[in-house]
Amino acid sequence: MTPVELRQAAREGRWTRPTAGVCDGHVQANLMVVPQDAAFEFLLFCQRNPKPCPVIEVLEAGRVEPGCAPGADLRTDLPRYRVYRDGQLVAEPAEVGDLWRDDLVSFLIGCSFSFEEPLAAAGVPLRHVECGVNVPMYRTNRPTAPAGRFHGPLVVSMRPIPAALVPLAVQITGRYEQVHGAPVHVGESGALGIADLARPDFGDAVEIRPGELPVFWACGVTPQAAALASRLPFCITHAPGHMFVTDLKNAALGR
Amino acid sequence: MTPVELRQAAREGRWTRPTAGVCDGHVQANLMVVPQDAAFEFLLFCQRNPKPCPVIEVLEAGRVEPGCAPGADLRTDLPRYRVYRDGQLVAEPAEVGDLWRDDLVSFLIGCSFSFEEPLAAAGVPLRHVECGVNVPMYRTNRPTAPAGRFHGPLVVSMRPIPAALVPLAVQITGRYEQVHGAPVHVGESGALGIADLARPDFGDAVEIRPGELPVFWACGVTPQAAALASRLPFCITHAPGHMFVTDLKNAALGR
Repeated sequence: MTPVELRQAAREGRWTRPTAGVCDGHVQANLMVVPQDAAFEFLLFCQRNPKPCPVIEVLEAGRVEPGCAPGADLRTDLPRYRVYRDGQLVAEPAEVGDLWRDDLVSFLIGCSFSFEEPLAAAGVPLRHVECGVNVPMYRTNRPTAPAGRFHGPLVVSMRPIPAALVPLAVQITGRYEQVHGAPVHVGESGALGIADLARPDFGDAVEIRPGELPVFWACGVTPQAAALASRLPFCITHAPGHMFVTDLKNAALGR
Repeated sequence: MTPVELRQAAREGRWTRPTAGVCDGHVQANLMVVPQDAAFEFLLFCQRNPKPCPVIEVLEAGRVEPGCAPGADLRTDLPRYRVYRDGQLVAEPAEVGDLWRDDLVSFLIGCSFSFEEPLAAAGVPLRHVECGVNVPMYRTNRPTAPAGRFHGPLVVSMRPIPAALVPLAVQITGRYEQVHGAPVHVGESGALGIADLARPDFGDAVEIRPGELPVFWACGVTPQAAALASRLPFCITHAPGHMFVTDLKNAALGR
């Protein structure tokens, strides 16, 4: 399936499932939509926290067609959305055209799906992909750098990596700065304030086998957590795992 | 001289000269100060044009002490400023405390001085340094990606590099993405719309000797040019060559 076909299927309500593994080779993005009066502070939050919040594209108020996906419409072309009011989840609809306002600014933020492809190609096993579950994600004790009303903990995703492959995993993902880049932490999950790896805050738990280390990458859920902690009067995001699929190629993000 | 000493001397009016070559090893930054109501658009302009506008730090309205220079005051600690109203230069004072307003947002933007040190250390000659003049800068025919009211041409700095050292110069500066990174163009200045290398738009002309190619890097004057083209009602910048000297080390920006 091409990104155009996937977006069309989402627009017509024929695709409402997660997007992991679809449109191989294409960049998928987190969506964060905030009112104009919070846009400077949110962009500044991203600038100050580039590892969890690598900005792929910003659409100014009044725009819904990204440059990275000509013909697309951010109001309809994701499989599922989340709508928050005052920091509370109020709906999880398949489109948000009826909620859209002229003052909404949209942010597309890089996603680790982009670096999983080169990891797998290099022979680094990905447990959550093998098991067909969502990657486990954890709130940490590391604060982000606040910006105006936006603040909150760094959220990380975790992949168990065989000890001998940890350096390779660091080097490969380090080439993909626009999609979280190198890990932020290797092993020793207690030092991140994670009490129990078997109980992730988001996503699904995965087994860590003998000889593997848990490796942690900054995660695109971080800006969502900050938007909720700030009790923003109104915002729209993608639903977890239901990403916006762009026309960009993962390979173009590496260096 | 340490950065603290240089900033103190600037604050007391004892240093009003350019800062090239002072406080060796420390990051120097372009300053751009805009009213709050233009801050989102300007930060977005930087996000869309990361090569000419690599953001080192943003100070929100009401703040004048950067995290990259504790104890400093952006209103007094640069050797010289430029003040613009409606896109016109109206003053070039040694301090701007009397013009400061509570709604001003300050941007510190990376400067190529930071990558000249590792270039020189690797044996790449720098003509403008040898000659004790300002680096030559040119408006090009390449547009920047506009953001709201901000738009304008890419401005580049030029260094003549011996042909055999061009790859090395590309590789070294490519490691310094926060200070413009790799060049945007090598040789063939006509393709950039530069009519005559002997007549730069900013800075001083330098000789290009037989066997050398002109190599062009994105330049921190680009955001200033965009601010002027946008006829911003009010903004403050550093005066050319009179940079803000931070406590950051150039070496910390490389990778």
